[in-house]
Amino acid sequence: MVSSKTTLKAGNMLNPTPVVMVSCGYSIDEYNIITIAWTGTLCSEPPLCYISIRPQRYSYKIIKENREFVINLVNDKLSAYADWCGVKTGAQVDKFEATGLTPVRGSKISAPLILESPVNIECKVKEIIPLGSHDMFLSEIVAVDADKSLFNPKTNALELKKANLVSYSHGNYFNLGKLIGKFGFSVEKKK
Amino acid sequence: MVSSKTTLKAGNMLNPTPVVMVSCGYSIDEYNIITIAWTGTLCSEPPLCYISIRPQRYSYKIIKENREFVINLVNDKLSAYADWCGVKTGAQVDKFEATGLTPVRGSKISAPLILESPVNIECKVKEIIPLGSHDMFLSEIVAVDADKSLFNPKTNALELKKANLVSYSHGNYFNLGKLIGKFGFSVEKKK
Repeated sequence: MVSSKTTLKAGNMLNPTPVVMVSCGYSIDEYNIITIAWTGTLCSEPPLCYISIRPQRYSYKIIKENREFVINLVNDKLSAYADWCGVKTGAQVDKFEATGLTPVRGSKISAPLILESPVNIECKVKEIIPLGSHDMFLSEIVAVDADKSLFNPKTNALELKKANLVSYSHGNYFNLGKLIGKFGFSVEKKK
Repeated sequence: MVSSKTTLKAGNMLNPTPVVMVSCGYSIDEYNIITIAWTGTLCSEPPLCYISIRPQRYSYKIIKENREFVINLVNDKLSAYADWCGVKTGAQVDKFEATGLTPVRGSKISAPLILESPVNIECKVKEIIPLGSHDMFLSEIVAVDADKSLFNPKTNALELKKANLVSYSHGNYFNLGKLIGKFGFSVEKKK
């Protein structure tokens, strides 16, 4: 290795990541929320994503049995709830009740979405792949629900910037900051 | 669905995501860079991650044959290069030569890392899973290389905030903005 670099032991250093609240459960007494950073998009067509969960986590069994969950995107207002839902366990506390967040039945699945989240991604599990400390839930996106306030009233286009989403990097939550540019900005012709 | 939400057709809406430059190739004439947002951590122990690539992309075959690649994290200085490497194809241009970025052999693999990137994650492909439009490269992290400037000179701890990493959300590149808090901030006792 060249002298300006230090080689560390192999480990997870992919940053920044998303940070999302995953809601699950078939009936209201089973509803739970788990906060997850190990999630991502896997495929466009069909639209596939994943979440990775330790088998010891309280939500693991719920999602494994129901094979459904909702990925709720986190904005700055929700960041303290997201952190709290990542620290606490559903084995000891009803997270919807404790946070006051509102569960709403999904449009395509029984698992609840979190009403206060700006965007809710409804998922059905296709395959559970054991990997070691975590199992990967490879899942199909079956519907997306977004706050009406995020759409441009004239064009009806989704303007996700309005959502004030939060990013996670090396143990820290950040607001998205300055816009650098949109995809393709490096080759855009100046008008 | 409740009236404050609009249900969209199923699609990828998981945001923000990472945005990384993936470098690959066994020998210098094969070296290439592809920019990818569909990447994430899958497992802690062993440390596993993935990248998803369309089979049509120029880097697809290179990575499939060599079964090695490097995930190079992108900071604000590199964001225009990252965008450019995502727009252009290695079939028509030598991206290292055109950008002036410096390929350096990895510590554990033959694929080159990008010297100018603050953090380089060396990966070996374990499994290629066809999913539809994209194949998922499920990979093991075998080494991480980080700029010496990112370490605290007294404690020797990695301070990734110094890297000024970039996030990607719904087609836009963003700097990380205001720090909201670190993991656990919602239950931290005030001193």
